[in-house]
Amino acid sequence: MFEAVKSPYLVPFDGSFTVGEAPTAPRSEPEKKKATNALQKRIKKMRSLQDMLYAQNEWSVLLVFQAMDAAGKDGTIKAVMSGINPAGCQVHSFQKPSENELDHDFLWRTAIRLPERGRIGIFNRSYYEEVLVVRVHPKILMGQRLPFIPAGDAVWDQRLESIEDHELHLARNGTVILKFWLNVSKEEQKKRFLARIEEPEKNWKFHPADVAERGHWEDYMLAYEETLKSTSRSWAPWYAIPADDKPYMRMAVADVIVRSLESLGLAYPTVSATARAELASWGDQLEAEE
Amino acid sequence: MFEAVKSPYLVPFDGSFTVGEAPTAPRSEPEKKKATNALQKRIKKMRSLQDMLYAQNEWSVLLVFQAMDAAGKDGTIKAVMSGINPAGCQVHSFQKPSENELDHDFLWRTAIRLPERGRIGIFNRSYYEEVLVVRVHPKILMGQRLPFIPAGDAVWDQRLESIEDHELHLARNGTVILKFWLNVSKEEQKKRFLARIEEPEKNWKFHPADVAERGHWEDYMLAYEETLKSTSRSWAPWYAIPADDKPYMRMAVADVIVRSLESLGLAYPTVSATARAELASWGDQLEAEE
Repeated sequence: MFEAVKSPYLVPFDGSFTVGEAPTAPRSEPEKKKATNALQKRIKKMRSLQDMLYAQNEWSVLLVFQAMDAAGKDGTIKAVMSGINPAGCQVHSFQKPSENELDHDFLWRTAIRLPERGRIGIFNRSYYEEVLVVRVHPKILMGQRLPFIPAGDAVWDQRLESIEDHELHLARNGTVILKFWLNVSKEEQKKRFLARIEEPEKNWKFHPADVAERGHWEDYMLAYEETLKSTSRSWAPWYAIPADDKPYMRMAVADVIVRSLESLGLAYPTVSATARAELASWGDQLEAEE
Repeated sequence: MFEAVKSPYLVPFDGSFTVGEAPTAPRSEPEKKKATNALQKRIKKMRSLQDMLYAQNEWSVLLVFQAMDAAGKDGTIKAVMSGINPAGCQVHSFQKPSENELDHDFLWRTAIRLPERGRIGIFNRSYYEEVLVVRVHPKILMGQRLPFIPAGDAVWDQRLESIEDHELHLARNGTVILKFWLNVSKEEQKKRFLARIEEPEKNWKFHPADVAERGHWEDYMLAYEETLKSTSRSWAPWYAIPADDKPYMRMAVADVIVRSLESLGLAYPTVSATARAELASWGDQLEAEE
Protein backbone atom coordinates (compact mmCIF):
# COMPACT_ATOMS: atom_id res chain seq x y z
CA MET A 1 0.00 0.00 0.00
CA PHE A 2 1.17 3.54 -0.76
CA GLU A 3 2.76 5.45 2.13
CA ALA A 4 2.84 9.24 2.39
CA VAL A 5 6.10 11.04 1.62
CA LYS A 6 7.38 13.42 4.27
CA SER A 7 6.99 17.18 3.91
CA PRO A 8 6.81 20.13 6.30
CA TYR A 9 3.20 20.48 5.07
CA LEU A 10 2.12 16.89 5.70
CA VAL A 11 -0.85 16.89 8.11
CA PRO A 12 0.10 14.52 10.97
CA PHE A 13 -1.90 11.29 11.37
CA ASP A 14 -2.37 11.63 15.13
CA GLY A 15 -5.08 14.30 15.14
CA SER A 16 -2.76 17.06 16.37
CA PHE A 17 -3.25 19.34 13.36
CA THR A 18 -4.49 22.88 13.96
CA VAL A 19 -5.35 25.43 11.29
CA GLY A 20 -3.86 28.20 13.45
CA GLU A 21 -0.37 26.73 13.22
CA ALA A 22 -0.51 25.94 9.49
CA PRO A 23 1.45 28.55 7.53
CA THR A 24 -0.27 30.43 4.70
CA ALA A 25 3.05 31.78 3.37
CA PRO A 26 6.44 30.11 2.84
CA ARG A 27 8.76 30.62 5.83
CA SER A 28 11.34 32.51 3.76
CA GLU A 29 10.26 34.63 0.82
CA PRO A 30 11.15 32.52 -2.26
CA GLU A 31 12.31 34.26 -5.41
CA LYS A 32 9.55 33.87 -7.96
CA LYS A 33 12.02 32.74 -10.64
CA LYS A 34 13.51 30.03 -8.44
CA ALA A 35 10.11 28.53 -7.66
CA THR A 36 9.15 28.61 -11.34
CA ASN A 37 12.33 26.80 -12.40
CA ALA A 38 11.84 24.23 -9.65
CA LEU A 39 8.26 23.68 -10.87
CA GLN A 40 9.39 23.07 -14.46
CA LYS A 41 11.97 20.53 -13.29
CA ARG A 42 9.28 18.66 -11.38
CA ILE A 43 6.81 18.73 -14.25
CA LYS A 44 9.46 17.13 -16.47
CA LYS A 45 9.97 14.35 -13.93
CA MET A 46 6.23 13.91 -13.54
CA ARG A 47 5.90 13.42 -17.28
CA SER A 48 8.24 10.44 -17.33
CA LEU A 49 6.72 8.97 -14.15
CA GLN A 50 3.23 9.26 -15.63
CA ASP A 51 4.41 7.46 -18.73
CA MET A 52 5.52 4.48 -16.62
CA LEU A 53 2.35 4.62 -14.50
CA TYR A 54 0.31 4.39 -17.70
CA ALA A 55 2.40 1.57 -19.19
CA GLN A 56 2.39 -0.47 -15.98
CA ASN A 57 -1.40 -0.03 -15.65
CA GLU A 58 -1.72 -1.13 -12.01
CA TRP A 59 -1.76 1.93 -9.75
CA SER A 60 -4.38 4.68 -9.94
CA VAL A 61 -3.57 8.16 -8.67
CA LEU A 62 -6.22 10.44 -7.17
CA LEU A 63 -5.36 14.08 -6.46
CA VAL A 64 -7.90 15.97 -4.37
CA PHE A 65 -7.87 19.78 -4.20
CA GLN A 66 -9.84 21.69 -1.60
CA ALA A 67 -9.56 25.35 -0.65
CA MET A 68 -11.34 28.59 0.12
CA ASP A 69 -12.34 30.70 -2.89
CA ALA A 70 -9.47 32.39 -4.76
CA ALA A 71 -6.86 30.17 -3.10
CA GLY A 72 -5.72 29.04 -6.54
CA LYS A 73 -7.11 25.54 -7.16
CA ASP A 74 -7.78 26.02 -10.87
CA GLY A 75 -4.48 27.82 -11.50
CA THR A 76 -2.52 25.14 -9.64
CA ILE A 77 -4.16 22.30 -11.55
CA LYS A 78 -3.46 24.14 -14.80
CA ALA A 79 0.16 24.97 -13.96
CA VAL A 80 1.13 21.64 -12.43
CA MET A 81 -0.71 19.22 -14.71
CA SER A 82 -0.50 20.95 -18.09
CA GLY A 83 2.78 19.32 -19.03
CA ILE A 84 1.60 15.74 -18.85
CA ASN A 85 -0.09 13.45 -21.36
CA PRO A 86 -3.83 14.18 -21.21
CA ALA A 87 -4.59 10.59 -22.29
CA GLY A 88 -3.63 9.49 -18.79
CA CYS A 89 -5.16 12.34 -16.83
CA GLN A 90 -8.71 13.55 -16.16
CA VAL A 91 -9.89 16.56 -14.18
CA HIS A 92 -13.36 16.61 -12.61
CA SER A 93 -14.78 19.75 -11.02
CA PHE A 94 -17.55 19.20 -8.52
CA GLN A 95 -20.04 22.01 -8.06
CA LYS A 96 -23.41 21.88 -6.37
CA PRO A 97 -24.77 18.30 -6.75
CA SER A 98 -27.32 17.74 -9.51
CA GLU A 99 -30.76 16.22 -8.93
CA ASN A 100 -29.44 12.96 -10.36
CA GLU A 101 -26.46 13.03 -7.99
CA LEU A 102 -28.69 13.73 -4.98
CA ASP A 103 -30.56 10.57 -5.94
CA HIS A 104 -27.56 8.64 -4.57
CA ASP A 105 -25.39 8.43 -1.45
CA PHE A 106 -22.91 11.31 -1.19
CA LEU A 107 -19.90 9.26 -2.38
CA TRP A 108 -21.59 8.12 -5.60
CA ARG A 109 -20.95 11.11 -7.82
CA THR A 110 -17.21 11.03 -7.18
CA ALA A 111 -16.98 7.21 -7.07
CA ILE A 112 -18.23 6.90 -10.65
CA ARG A 113 -15.44 9.27 -11.73
CA LEU A 114 -12.54 7.61 -9.94
CA PRO A 115 -9.38 7.23 -12.04
CA GLU A 116 -8.75 3.94 -13.81
CA ARG A 117 -5.56 1.97 -13.25
CA GLY A 118 -2.61 3.70 -14.89
CA ARG A 119 -4.39 7.07 -14.76
CA ILE A 120 -4.21 10.26 -12.72
CA GLY A 121 -7.61 11.61 -11.69
CA ILE A 122 -7.92 15.13 -10.33
CA PHE A 123 -10.85 16.22 -8.19
CA ASN A 124 -11.29 20.00 -8.09
CA ARG A 125 -13.41 19.92 -4.94
CA SER A 126 -14.64 16.47 -3.97
CA TYR A 127 -16.66 14.41 -1.50
CA TYR A 128 -14.97 16.55 1.16
CA GLU A 129 -17.50 19.30 0.35
CA GLU A 130 -19.95 17.13 2.30
CA VAL A 131 -18.08 17.86 5.56
CA LEU A 132 -17.00 21.41 4.65
CA VAL A 133 -19.62 23.59 2.93
CA VAL A 134 -22.46 21.35 4.14
CA ARG A 135 -21.12 21.52 7.71
CA VAL A 136 -20.90 25.33 7.53
CA HIS A 137 -24.43 25.49 6.05
CA PRO A 138 -26.25 22.51 7.60
CA LYS A 139 -29.52 23.56 5.97
CA ILE A 140 -28.08 22.02 2.77
CA LEU A 141 -28.61 18.63 4.48
CA MET A 142 -32.35 19.24 4.44
CA GLY A 143 -32.30 19.31 0.64
CA GLN A 144 -30.44 16.00 0.30
CA ARG A 145 -33.60 13.86 0.41
CA LEU A 146 -32.24 11.71 3.24
CA PRO A 147 -34.88 9.55 4.93
CA PHE A 148 -33.25 10.37 8.31
CA ILE A 149 -30.43 12.57 9.65
CA PRO A 150 -28.49 11.65 12.80
CA ALA A 151 -28.63 14.35 15.48
CA GLY A 152 -25.84 16.72 16.44
CA ASP A 153 -22.29 16.03 15.34
CA ALA A 154 -23.06 12.36 14.59
CA VAL A 155 -23.86 13.18 10.97
CA TRP A 156 -20.38 14.71 10.45
CA ASP A 157 -18.63 11.94 12.37
CA GLN A 158 -20.41 9.35 10.23
CA ARG A 159 -19.56 11.18 7.03
CA LEU A 160 -15.91 11.44 8.03
CA GLU A 161 -15.94 7.73 8.83
CA SER A 162 -17.50 6.90 5.44
CA ILE A 163 -14.78 8.93 3.73
CA GLU A 164 -12.01 7.29 5.72
CA ASP A 165 -13.36 3.80 5.00
CA HIS A 166 -13.76 4.62 1.31
CA GLU A 167 -10.20 5.89 1.02
CA LEU A 168 -8.77 2.88 2.87
CA HIS A 169 -10.61 0.57 0.48
CA LEU A 170 -9.27 2.46 -2.54
CA ALA A 171 -5.72 2.51 -1.17
CA ARG A 172 -5.82 -1.23 -0.48
CA ASN A 173 -6.89 -1.82 -4.04
CA GLY A 174 -4.14 0.20 -5.66
CA THR A 175 -5.07 3.88 -5.54
CA VAL A 176 -2.57 6.51 -4.43
CA ILE A 177 -4.57 9.30 -2.79
CA LEU A 178 -2.97 12.72 -2.30
CA LYS A 179 -5.04 15.53 -0.84
CA PHE A 180 -4.08 19.18 -1.00
CA TRP A 181 -5.56 21.95 1.07
CA LEU A 182 -4.42 25.23 -0.49
CA ASN A 183 -4.20 27.33 2.64
CA VAL A 184 -4.75 30.98 1.76
CA SER A 185 -4.95 33.74 4.40
CA LYS A 186 -8.05 35.89 4.83
CA GLU A 187 -5.99 39.00 3.92
CA GLU A 188 -4.66 37.44 0.70
CA GLN A 189 -8.18 36.36 -0.31
CA LYS A 190 -9.35 39.97 0.12
CA LYS A 191 -6.54 41.21 -2.16
CA ARG A 192 -7.47 38.65 -4.82
CA PHE A 193 -11.19 39.49 -4.65
CA LEU A 194 -10.34 43.19 -5.02
CA ALA A 195 -8.18 42.37 -8.04
CA ARG A 196 -11.14 40.52 -9.56
CA ILE A 197 -13.27 43.63 -9.11
CA GLU A 198 -10.65 46.12 -10.29
CA GLU A 199 -9.03 44.33 -13.23
CA PRO A 200 -11.49 44.00 -16.16
CA GLU A 201 -9.97 40.73 -17.45
CA LYS A 202 -10.57 39.19 -14.01
CA ASN A 203 -14.16 40.45 -13.59
CA TRP A 204 -15.66 37.15 -14.80
CA LYS A 205 -14.13 35.37 -11.84
CA PHE A 206 -15.93 37.53 -9.29
CA HIS A 207 -19.14 36.29 -7.68
CA PRO A 208 -20.87 38.40 -5.02
CA ALA A 209 -21.76 35.16 -3.20
CA ASP A 210 -18.03 34.60 -2.56
CA VAL A 211 -17.95 37.72 -0.38
CA ALA A 212 -20.88 36.38 1.65
CA GLU A 213 -19.05 33.04 2.11
CA ARG A 214 -16.07 35.00 3.43
CA GLY A 215 -18.31 35.99 6.33
CA HIS A 216 -18.21 32.33 7.44
CA TRP A 217 -14.40 32.21 7.50
CA GLU A 218 -14.08 31.00 11.09
CA ASP A 219 -16.67 28.25 10.57
CA TYR A 220 -14.84 27.09 7.47
CA MET A 221 -11.51 26.99 9.33
CA LEU A 222 -13.11 24.85 12.05
CA ALA A 223 -14.56 22.50 9.43
CA TYR A 224 -11.19 22.22 7.66
CA GLU A 225 -9.41 21.54 10.93
CA GLU A 226 -11.87 18.82 11.93
CA THR A 227 -11.68 17.27 8.47
CA LEU A 228 -7.92 17.33 7.95
CA LYS A 229 -7.08 16.06 11.39
CA SER A 230 -9.49 13.14 11.17
CA THR A 231 -8.80 12.04 7.58
CA SER A 232 -5.04 12.47 7.11
CA ARG A 233 -3.63 8.95 6.98
CA SER A 234 -0.36 7.46 5.74
CA TRP A 235 -2.29 5.88 2.81
CA ALA A 236 -4.32 9.04 2.07
CA PRO A 237 -2.37 12.03 3.38
CA TRP A 238 -3.44 15.66 3.48
CA TYR A 239 -0.89 18.37 2.70
CA ALA A 240 -1.72 21.87 3.95
CA ILE A 241 0.13 23.95 1.36
CA PRO A 242 0.83 27.67 1.98
CA ALA A 243 -1.14 29.41 -0.77
CA ASP A 244 -0.40 33.12 -0.38
CA ASP A 245 2.51 32.87 -2.85
CA LYS A 246 1.30 31.21 -6.04
CA PRO A 247 4.61 30.11 -7.63
CA TYR A 248 5.74 28.59 -4.34
CA MET A 249 2.39 26.84 -3.83
CA ARG A 250 2.50 25.26 -7.27
CA MET A 251 6.06 24.08 -6.80
CA ALA A 252 5.22 22.61 -3.38
CA VAL A 253 2.24 20.67 -4.81
CA ALA A 254 4.29 19.33 -7.74
CA ASP A 255 7.07 18.32 -5.34
CA VAL A 256 4.73 16.11 -3.27
CA ILE A 257 3.25 14.51 -6.39
CA VAL A 258 6.64 13.73 -7.92
CA ARG A 259 8.12 12.27 -4.75
CA SER A 260 4.97 10.20 -4.17
CA LEU A 261 5.13 8.75 -7.68
CA GLU A 262 8.86 8.07 -7.24
CA SER A 263 8.15 6.12 -4.05
CA LEU A 264 6.05 3.58 -5.99
CA GLY A 265 9.10 2.14 -7.76
CA LEU A 266 7.29 2.33 -11.11
CA ALA A 267 8.82 0.48 -14.05
CA TYR A 268 7.91 -0.35 -17.62
CA PRO A 269 6.43 -3.85 -17.88
CA THR A 270 9.22 -6.31 -18.59
CA VAL A 271 9.02 -8.74 -21.44
CA SER A 272 10.13 -12.38 -21.02
CA ALA A 273 12.99 -13.93 -23.04
CA THR A 274 10.45 -16.00 -25.02
CA ALA A 275 8.39 -12.91 -25.80
CA ARG A 276 11.54 -11.03 -26.82
CA ALA A 277 12.50 -13.88 -29.16
CA GLU A 278 9.00 -13.75 -30.62
CA LEU A 279 9.33 -9.97 -31.09
CA ALA A 280 12.59 -10.58 -32.97
CA SER A 281 10.88 -13.05 -35.30
CA TRP A 282 8.17 -10.46 -36.06
CA GLY A 283 11.00 -8.07 -36.84
CA ASP A 284 12.52 -10.62 -39.23
CA GLN A 285 9.18 -11.03 -40.95
CA LEU A 286 8.81 -7.27 -41.39
CA GLU A 287 12.37 -7.01 -42.77
CA ALA A 288 11.68 -9.82 -45.22
CA GLU A 289 8.64 -8.00 -46.66
CA GLU A 290 9.00 -7.28 -50.35
CA MET B 1 -31.32 3.54 9.72
CA PHE B 2 -33.10 0.41 8.49
CA GLU B 3 -33.15 -2.56 10.88
CA ALA B 4 -33.48 -6.18 9.80
CA VAL B 5 -36.82 -7.90 10.23
CA LYS B 6 -36.80 -11.19 12.10
CA SER B 7 -37.03 -14.52 10.29
CA PRO B 8 -35.97 -18.10 11.01
CA TYR B 9 -33.56 -17.63 8.07
CA LEU B 10 -31.94 -14.39 9.28
CA VAL B 11 -28.18 -14.95 9.65
CA PRO B 12 -27.27 -13.86 13.20
CA PHE B 13 -25.04 -10.80 13.63
CA ASP B 14 -22.74 -12.40 16.22
CA GLY B 15 -20.69 -14.60 13.88
CA SER B 16 -22.32 -17.83 15.06
CA PHE B 17 -23.69 -18.83 11.64
CA THR B 18 -22.67 -22.21 10.20
CA VAL B 19 -23.59 -23.56 6.80
CA GLY B 20 -24.01 -27.04 8.24
CA GLU B 21 -26.96 -25.95 10.39
CA ALA B 22 -28.67 -23.88 7.68
CA PRO B 23 -31.64 -25.81 6.23
CA THR B 24 -31.82 -26.38 2.48
CA ALA B 25 -35.46 -27.48 2.68
CA PRO B 26 -38.45 -26.11 4.60
CA ARG B 27 -38.97 -27.85 7.95
CA SER B 28 -42.42 -29.12 6.99
CA GLU B 29 -43.21 -29.94 3.39
CA PRO B 30 -45.35 -27.01 2.18
CA GLU B 31 -48.12 -27.63 -0.30
CA LYS B 32 -47.05 -26.09 -3.58
CA LYS B 33 -50.38 -24.35 -4.01
CA LYS B 34 -50.27 -22.76 -0.56
CA ALA B 35 -46.81 -21.29 -1.17
CA THR B 36 -47.89 -19.95 -4.56
CA ASN B 37 -50.95 -18.24 -3.11
CA ALA B 38 -48.87 -16.77 -0.30
CA LEU B 39 -46.39 -15.45 -2.89
CA GLN B 40 -49.15 -13.75 -4.89
CA LYS B 41 -50.48 -12.07 -1.76
CA ARG B 42 -47.03 -10.71 -0.97
CA ILE B 43 -46.41 -9.49 -4.52
CA LYS B 44 -49.63 -7.50 -4.31
CA LYS B 45 -48.48 -5.87 -1.08
CA MET B 46 -45.05 -5.21 -2.56
CA ARG B 47 -46.64 -3.39 -5.45
CA SER B 48 -48.35 -0.85 -3.22
CA LEU B 49 -45.28 -0.45 -1.01
CA GLN B 50 -43.09 0.16 -4.07
CA ASP B 51 -45.51 2.82 -5.24
CA MET B 52 -45.04 4.72 -1.97
CA LEU B 53 -41.28 4.16 -1.99
CA TYR B 54 -41.18 5.74 -5.46
CA ALA B 55 -43.42 8.66 -4.54
CA GLN B 56 -41.54 9.40 -1.32
CA ASN B 57 -38.21 9.26 -3.17
CA GLU B 58 -35.93 9.03 -0.11
CA TRP B 59 -35.05 5.39 0.55
CA SER B 60 -33.20 3.16 -1.92
CA VAL B 61 -33.60 -0.61 -1.74
CA LEU B 62 -30.80 -2.97 -2.75
CA LEU B 63 -31.54 -6.70 -3.05
CA VAL B 64 -28.49 -8.94 -3.38
CA PHE B 65 -28.84 -12.53 -4.59
CA GLN B 66 -26.01 -15.03 -4.25
CA ALA B 67 -26.13 -18.79 -4.68
CA MET B 68 -24.55 -21.90 -6.14
CA ASP B 69 -25.48 -22.69 -9.76
CA ALA B 70 -29.05 -23.88 -10.34
CA ALA B 71 -30.19 -22.69 -6.91
CA GLY B 72 -32.80 -20.53 -8.61
CA LYS B 73 -31.59 -16.90 -8.56
CA ASP B 74 -32.98 -15.99 -11.98
CA GLY B 75 -36.28 -17.77 -11.41
CA THR B 76 -36.73 -16.14 -8.00
CA ILE B 77 -36.03 -12.66 -9.32
CA LYS B 78 -38.49 -13.29 -12.15
CA ALA B 79 -41.22 -14.74 -9.93
CA VAL B 80 -40.92 -12.27 -7.05
CA MET B 81 -40.29 -9.02 -8.90
CA SER B 82 -42.38 -9.45 -12.05
CA GLY B 83 -45.51 -7.94 -10.54
CA ILE B 84 -44.02 -4.55 -9.72
CA ASN B 85 -43.65 -1.36 -11.73
CA PRO B 86 -40.46 -1.71 -13.80
CA ALA B 87 -39.99 2.09 -13.75
CA GLY B 88 -38.88 1.78 -10.15
CA CYS B 89 -36.86 -1.42 -10.40
CA GLN B 90 -33.61 -2.41 -12.13
CA VAL B 91 -31.91 -5.79 -12.27
CA HIS B 92 -28.15 -6.04 -12.84
CA SER B 93 -26.45 -9.38 -13.45
CA PHE B 94 -22.75 -9.47 -12.73
CA GLN B 95 -20.67 -11.97 -14.66
CA LYS B 96 -16.89 -12.12 -15.02
CA PRO B 97 -15.58 -8.52 -14.74
CA SER B 98 -14.77 -6.76 -18.01
CA GLU B 99 -11.39 -5.19 -18.78
CA ASN B 100 -12.91 -1.79 -18.06
CA GLU B 101 -14.24 -3.01 -14.71
CA LEU B 102 -10.87 -4.51 -13.74
CA ASP B 103 -9.45 -1.03 -14.32
CA HIS B 104 -11.11 -0.04 -11.04
CA ASP B 105 -11.32 -1.18 -7.43
CA PHE B 106 -13.60 -4.19 -6.97
CA LEU B 107 -16.56 -2.18 -5.63
CA TRP B 108 -16.65 0.20 -8.59
CA ARG B 109 -18.66 -1.87 -11.05
CA THR B 110 -21.50 -2.40 -8.62
CA ALA B 111 -21.25 1.08 -7.05
CA ILE B 112 -21.99 2.77 -10.37
CA ARG B 113 -25.18 0.67 -10.64
CA LEU B 114 -26.55 1.27 -7.15
CA PRO B 115 -30.27 2.07 -7.03
CA GLU B 116 -31.39 5.70 -6.91
CA ARG B 117 -33.63 6.99 -4.14
CA GLY B 118 -37.15 5.67 -4.53
CA ARG B 119 -35.93 2.66 -6.52
CA ILE B 120 -35.35 -1.04 -5.98
CA GLY B 121 -32.05 -2.31 -7.40
CA ILE B 122 -31.46 -6.04 -7.74
CA PHE B 123 -27.98 -7.51 -7.97
CA ASN B 124 -27.94 -11.01 -9.48
CA ARG B 125 -24.49 -11.85 -8.09
CA SER B 126 -22.60 -8.87 -6.72
CA TYR B 127 -19.39 -7.61 -5.09
CA TYR B 128 -19.69 -10.72 -2.91
CA GLU B 129 -18.23 -12.73 -5.82
CA GLU B 130 -14.91 -11.16 -4.78
CA VAL B 131 -14.91 -13.17 -1.54
CA LEU B 132 -16.67 -16.26 -2.98
CA VAL B 133 -15.54 -17.40 -6.43
CA VAL B 134 -12.28 -15.46 -6.14
CA ARG B 135 -11.60 -17.02 -2.74
CA VAL B 136 -12.26 -20.53 -4.12
CA HIS B 137 -10.03 -19.78 -7.14
CA PRO B 138 -7.37 -17.38 -5.80
CA LYS B 139 -5.53 -17.44 -9.12
CA ILE B 140 -8.24 -15.01 -10.34
CA LEU B 141 -6.59 -12.42 -8.06
CA MET B 142 -3.48 -12.57 -10.24
CA GLY B 143 -5.47 -11.30 -13.20
CA GLN B 144 -6.89 -8.30 -11.33
CA ARG B 145 -3.91 -6.05 -12.10
CA LEU B 146 -3.40 -5.20 -8.44
CA PRO B 147 -0.05 -3.51 -7.68
CA PHE B 148 0.21 -5.62 -4.49
CA ILE B 149 -1.73 -8.44 -2.79
CA PRO B 150 -1.67 -8.91 0.99
CA ALA B 151 -0.45 -12.36 2.04
CA GLY B 152 -2.58 -15.20 3.38
CA ASP B 153 -6.11 -14.52 4.57
CA ALA B 154 -5.46 -10.77 4.91
CA VAL B 155 -6.72 -10.16 1.38
CA TRP B 156 -10.10 -11.75 2.22
CA ASP B 157 -10.32 -10.04 5.59
CA GLN B 158 -9.64 -6.68 3.93
CA ARG B 159 -12.21 -7.34 1.22
CA LEU B 160 -14.84 -8.32 3.78
CA GLU B 161 -14.01 -5.15 5.72
CA SER B 162 -14.34 -3.02 2.56
CA ILE B 163 -17.75 -4.57 1.89
CA GLU B 164 -18.91 -4.04 5.45
CA ASP B 165 -17.77 -0.39 5.43
CA HIS B 166 -19.42 0.19 2.05
CA GLU B 167 -22.74 -1.25 3.21
CA LEU B 168 -22.68 0.74 6.45
CA HIS B 169 -22.11 3.92 4.46
CA LEU B 170 -25.00 3.10 2.12
CA ALA B 171 -27.32 2.20 5.00
CA ARG B 172 -26.51 5.44 6.82
CA ASN B 173 -27.36 7.38 3.69
CA GLY B 174 -30.75 5.79 3.13
CA THR B 175 -30.27 2.42 1.43
CA VAL B 176 -32.11 -0.68 2.66
CA ILE B 177 -29.83 -3.64 1.92
CA LEU B 178 -31.31 -7.16 1.92
CA LYS B 179 -29.06 -10.09 1.00
CA PHE B 180 -30.35 -13.52 0.06
CA TRP B 181 -28.31 -16.67 -0.07
CA LEU B 182 -30.42 -19.27 -1.87
CA ASN B 183 -29.21 -22.36 -0.05
CA VAL B 184 -29.56 -25.38 -2.32
CA SER B 185 -28.32 -28.86 -1.36
CA LYS B 186 -25.69 -30.69 -3.38
CA GLU B 187 -28.21 -33.47 -4.14
CA GLU B 188 -30.84 -31.03 -5.41
CA GLN B 189 -28.25 -29.30 -7.61
CA LYS B 190 -27.41 -32.68 -9.16
CA LYS B 191 -31.10 -33.30 -9.94
CA ARG B 192 -31.44 -29.88 -11.57
CA PHE B 193 -28.27 -30.33 -13.65
CA LEU B 194 -29.56 -33.73 -14.83
CA ALA B 195 -32.88 -32.12 -15.79
CA ARG B 196 -30.94 -29.53 -17.82
CA ILE B 197 -29.23 -32.36 -19.68
CA GLU B 198 -32.31 -34.54 -20.15
CA GLU B 199 -35.02 -31.98 -20.96
CA PRO B 200 -34.42 -30.40 -24.40
CA GLU B 201 -36.05 -27.08 -23.47
CA LYS B 202 -33.59 -26.77 -20.54
CA ASN B 203 -30.46 -27.72 -22.51
CA TRP B 204 -29.48 -24.08 -23.06
CA LYS B 205 -29.07 -23.63 -19.33
CA PHE B 206 -26.43 -26.35 -19.02
CA HIS B 207 -22.74 -25.45 -19.00
CA PRO B 208 -20.11 -28.18 -18.57
CA ALA B 209 -18.07 -25.73 -16.43
CA ASP B 210 -20.85 -25.82 -13.83
CA VAL B 211 -20.14 -29.50 -13.19
CA ALA B 212 -16.45 -28.68 -12.62
CA GLU B 213 -17.42 -25.93 -10.14
CA ARG B 214 -19.50 -28.53 -8.29
CA GLY B 215 -16.18 -30.26 -7.52
CA HIS B 216 -15.32 -27.27 -5.30
CA TRP B 217 -18.54 -27.57 -3.26
CA GLU B 218 -16.82 -27.75 0.14
CA ASP B 219 -14.60 -24.76 -0.62
CA TYR B 220 -17.64 -22.76 -1.66
CA MET B 221 -19.50 -23.68 1.51
CA LEU B 222 -16.54 -22.49 3.59
CA ALA B 223 -16.39 -19.22 1.62
CA TYR B 224 -20.15 -18.68 2.08
CA GLU B 225 -19.93 -19.40 5.79
CA GLU B 226 -17.03 -16.98 6.28
CA THR B 227 -18.82 -14.32 4.22
CA LEU B 228 -22.29 -14.59 5.72
CA LYS B 229 -21.11 -14.71 9.29
CA SER B 230 -18.87 -11.66 8.92
CA THR B 231 -21.19 -9.44 6.87
CA SER B 232 -24.67 -10.05 8.27
CA ARG B 233 -25.58 -6.88 10.15
CA SER B 234 -28.85 -5.39 11.39
CA TRP B 235 -28.55 -2.67 8.68
CA ALA B 236 -27.53 -5.16 5.94
CA PRO B 237 -28.82 -8.60 6.90
CA TRP B 238 -28.24 -11.90 5.14
CA TYR B 239 -31.08 -14.38 4.88
CA ALA B 240 -30.09 -18.00 4.18
CA ILE B 241 -33.22 -19.21 2.37
CA PRO B 242 -33.87 -22.95 1.90
CA ALA B 243 -33.77 -23.39 -1.88
CA ASP B 244 -34.59 -27.05 -2.52
CA ASP B 245 -38.30 -26.25 -2.85
CA LYS B 246 -38.76 -23.44 -5.37
CA PRO B 247 -42.29 -22.20 -4.51
CA TYR B 248 -41.40 -22.08 -0.83
CA MET B 249 -38.10 -20.27 -1.52
CA ARG B 250 -39.81 -17.59 -3.59
CA MET B 251 -42.48 -17.03 -0.99
CA ALA B 252 -39.83 -16.80 1.77
CA VAL B 253 -37.85 -14.18 -0.19
CA ALA B 254 -40.97 -12.11 -0.94
CA ASP B 255 -41.98 -12.31 2.70
CA VAL B 256 -38.70 -10.76 3.90
CA ILE B 257 -38.88 -8.01 1.27
CA VAL B 258 -42.48 -7.10 2.11
CA ARG B 259 -41.95 -7.02 5.86
CA SER B 260 -38.76 -4.97 5.43
CA LEU B 261 -40.57 -2.39 3.28
CA GLU B 262 -43.43 -2.30 5.79
CA SER B 263 -40.98 -1.55 8.61
CA LEU B 264 -39.96 1.73 6.91
CA GLY B 265 -43.31 3.38 7.60
CA LEU B 266 -43.52 4.58 3.99
CA ALA B 267 -46.15 7.19 3.15
CA TYR B 268 -47.11 9.32 0.19
CA PRO B 269 -45.67 12.81 0.46
CA THR B 270 -48.17 15.06 2.19
CA VAL B 271 -49.24 18.34 0.71
CA SER B 272 -49.62 21.46 2.89
CA ALA B 273 -52.93 23.31 3.32
CA THR B 274 -51.56 26.20 1.23
CA ALA B 275 -50.52 23.84 -1.55
CA ARG B 276 -53.92 22.13 -1.43
CA ALA B 277 -55.63 25.50 -1.74
CA GLU B 278 -53.40 26.25 -4.71
CA LEU B 279 -54.30 22.89 -6.25
CA ALA B 280 -57.96 23.79 -5.86
CA SER B 281 -57.43 27.09 -7.67
CA TRP B 282 -55.77 25.23 -10.57
CA GLY B 283 -58.83 23.00 -10.59
CA ASP B 284 -61.09 26.07 -10.78
CA GLN B 285 -59.05 27.43 -13.67
CA LEU B 286 -59.37 24.11 -15.54
CA GLU B 287 -63.11 24.02 -14.90
CA ALA B 288 -63.50 27.58 -16.19
CA GLU B 289 -61.81 26.74 -19.50
CA GLU B 290 -64.05 27.34 -22.50
